[in-house]
Amino acid sequence: MPLVKPLPAFLVSRYHGWRATTYEENKAWYRRLANEGQRPRMMVISCCDSRVNVNALFGAQTGDIFLHRNIANLVPPYLPDGDPHGTSAAVEYAVSVLKVSHVIVVGHSDCGGVRGCMDMCEGHMPELEEKSSFIGRWLEILRPGYEEVSKITDEAERIKALERAAVSVSIRNLATFPFVQKAVEDGSLTLHGLRIDIGDGVMESMTGEGWNFAVV
Amino acid sequence: MPLVKPLPAFLVSRYHGWRATTYEENKAWYRRLANEGQRPRMMVISCCDSRVNVNALFGAQTGDIFLHRNIANLVPPYLPDGDPHGTSAAVEYAVSVLKVSHVIVVGHSDCGGVRGCMDMCEGHMPELEEKSSFIGRWLEILRPGYEEVSKITDEAERIKALERAAVSVSIRNLATFPFVQKAVEDGSLTLHGLRIDIGDGVMESMTGEGWNFAVV
Amino acid sequence: MPLVKPLPAFLVSRYHGWRATTYEENKAWYRRLANEGQRPRMMVISCCDSRVNVNALFGAQTGDIFLHRNIANLVPPYLPDGDPHGTSAAVEYAVSVLKVSHVIVVGHSDCGGVRGCMDMCEGHMPELEEKSSFIGRWLEILRPGYEEVSKITDEAERIKALERAAVSVSIRNLATFPFVQKAVEDGSLTLHGLRIDIGDGVMESMTGEGWNFAVV
Amino acid sequence: MPLVKPLPAFLVSRYHGWRATTYEENKAWYRRLANEGQRPRMMVISCCDSRVNVNALFGAQTGDIFLHRNIANLVPPYLPDGDPHGTSAAVEYAVSVLKVSHVIVVGHSDCGGVRGCMDMCEGHMPELEEKSSFIGRWLEILRPGYEEVSKITDEAERIKALERAAVSVSIRNLATFPFVQKAVEDGSLTLHGLRIDIGDGVMESMTGEGWNFAVV
Repeated sequence: MPLVKPLPAFLVSRYHGWRATTYEENKAWYRRLANEGQRPRMMVISCCDSRVNVNALFGAQTGDIFLHRNIANLVPPYLPDGDPHGTSAAVEYAVSVLKVSHVIVVGHSDCGGVRGCMDMCEGHMPELEEKSSFIGRWLEILRPGYEEVSKITDEAERIKALERAAVSVSIRNLATFPFVQKAVEDGSLTLHGLRIDIGDGVMESMTGEGWNFAVV
Repeated sequence: MPLVKPLPAFLVSRYHGWRATTYEENKAWYRRLANEGQRPRMMVISCCDSRVNVNALFGAQTGDIFLHRNIANLVPPYLPDGDPHGTSAAVEYAVSVLKVSHVIVVGHSDCGGVRGCMDMCEGHMPELEEKSSFIGRWLEILRPGYEEVSKITDEAERIKALERAAVSVSIRNLATFPFVQKAVEDGSLTLHGLRIDIGDGVMESMTGEGWNFAVV
Repeated sequence: MPLVKPLPAFLVSRYHGWRATTYEENKAWYRRLANEGQRPRMMVISCCDSRVNVNALFGAQTGDIFLHRNIANLVPPYLPDGDPHGTSAAVEYAVSVLKVSHVIVVGHSDCGGVRGCMDMCEGHMPELEEKSSFIGRWLEILRPGYEEVSKITDEAERIKALERAAVSVSIRNLATFPFVQKAVEDGSLTLHGLRIDIGDGVMESMTGEGWNFAVV
Repeated sequence: MPLVKPLPAFLVSRYHGWRATTYEENKAWYRRLANEGQRPRMMVISCCDSRVNVNALFGAQTGDIFLHRNIANLVPPYLPDGDPHGTSAAVEYAVSVLKVSHVIVVGHSDCGGVRGCMDMCEGHMPELEEKSSFIGRWLEILRPGYEEVSKITDEAERIKALERAAVSVSIRNLATFPFVQKAVEDGSLTLHGLRIDIGDGVMESMTGEGWNFAVV
């Protein structure tokens, strides 16, 4: 059995639809983007969750947003140990090569990664504590956030606070990268944190006062 | 100076536009997605490049695609060493928790990461070889791909071959994860590889015969 | 008495407001736009009328739209006679230098220029027929459009038809410029025509079938 | 192939966002603007450059500014020769019909038109000297400004001086229109000249003492 299969027919058909419409309508622009390269104004770091549609939220077009997505929209601390760090590489490329003006971390409600982190930290998911659990090891990045919210007794409030912490911890970790620090200090880069509620569509933004969020 | 700034006004305004139109039109569906959780049919692994608009290519909607994006759409080999591996965590979550039916790796033309890998492997970018270069260390994942294409003398052909290798190497690395192997073997998961040309909109798909690509 | 006066205080104050907020929030991006130059995706040709807010209509930002505005959004026919033609110069700059992907002509309801053209053509405003009337001589560009709508008896319908003709005549004149023709033919440029109603906010777009407009 | 294409979908979508938010919020005002006509306090003459956002600079709203934009914000001298002069028509409409209180000419840094004029006057762009170059023939209006700054040896200073001259020459040309003269003399109109730096956001205004500019 071959390892790889051709693209499923329903995706082929949708792609042909895109090519006959969106591509056809915009091909002059796409050719320029190909010839001249991308020049995105911002980087967005969001969760892989299929319910977070970043381009739609911001009315963004092809070429507008340099978009990195991982489990729970986490940025690890600066650790130049020679190992591969995909998120750190994406941040370095956006800030040092593309010189984006904004890095925006977008968290969201009902995040499976954030829920997994809470369950793991509270001892309910020992399988996530195994060395072999990629999910568990990745969610360790959020453990300092859990420490800050663990005293909240209401579970719904605690999980919401941890979703916000997934944003604020990432912002703090971003600030440990020397090239991020430098760009923020010289005014060429600003950092922003958001959380979107999937069900009611309400967006919160970090205000810059402490680690507070306010409805946009 | 506060570390984080409120969301720029132009994004606030565009978000309000989304909320008044797209959200309003689809809120029953979004509420269900919030209440019942996501159930995406597929995972897509693409590049962060702002010119790769995965949802547009596949006419996909909120809830359809579990989307991981990193530099050069790379998947590292299976390495359960206890360190955080964001891409491996995303693959594990998609396959073991969400049980997606397809994992699709989407490469693209004019990829800055692939170009950087070639320049590094050919000795033209010593800064990418530094231990402190996150971009360089991440692109090491593609070095075995470079070895396979290095004999192609025409530079344009060599870079195109390396863009395809960024897909096929990732597919091969995916197959080193035990939970991926198992799902492929029991027929619950299929793997697919694509490359999209940004300028002319032509998509190629791996055929399953060797590592060949054919226009879709 | 000096010919020129300092900027009125209320504008100074509003500018300081802009500088302290919008500029401050976006200065990294503005600096890049200054260093790297503009790369607008589209040119818009609209009327000078204060009620036509092109950037707002399209959620556009600084850097997005190359914007030419004149009385009644008119483009004259190609006439390389060595005299200064501001509109033709703007079109040449957008298409030949900036290589925009779209030229969009935006007409509007209640247009004073269009009304003046109709009054002039129907003999009600002899002062517009004087050689010294810049307004009258400019509106001659629209006279061929008046000929096409003059048989419509209902005045409100006739004026609305002439507002649409101010768009379609401009599109036809655009097509007389060799560099526009060439760009349209090689697929690097598309032309679009719109009319926005100021009072009810309804936008019509030329459909490409004949010279018809349909609500967007 | 039809000459004109329907509005691209991304602009349709952004327009719907505008209609559902900005329009909806302000529709009472927009209806009054439609019923009673515009009554703008000022005319602004700026460059078409996508980086000059006049409404943003002055916190202006729909209905506030009668806005003419052309290459390099130039006003030609009074020349009632019966040919179409778009800029002169716009000035006549603003001053004689709308009776605006202010005409403000807004220049800017990094102006492609001003740069083209300097290159042409210094013999570096013979293609702009051709009779068929609309850009070149339009920029002739600024040639007298070039004569005044040509002795400045530092190139960056010379170009900045020419950007200022694009404003002051236009102001002087405005004063050659009899209806402008009359309105200035009877105190119903004032003229103003500005230059905005795109990168650092600093605005300079003509002071009225000679042709000097001072930071606002």
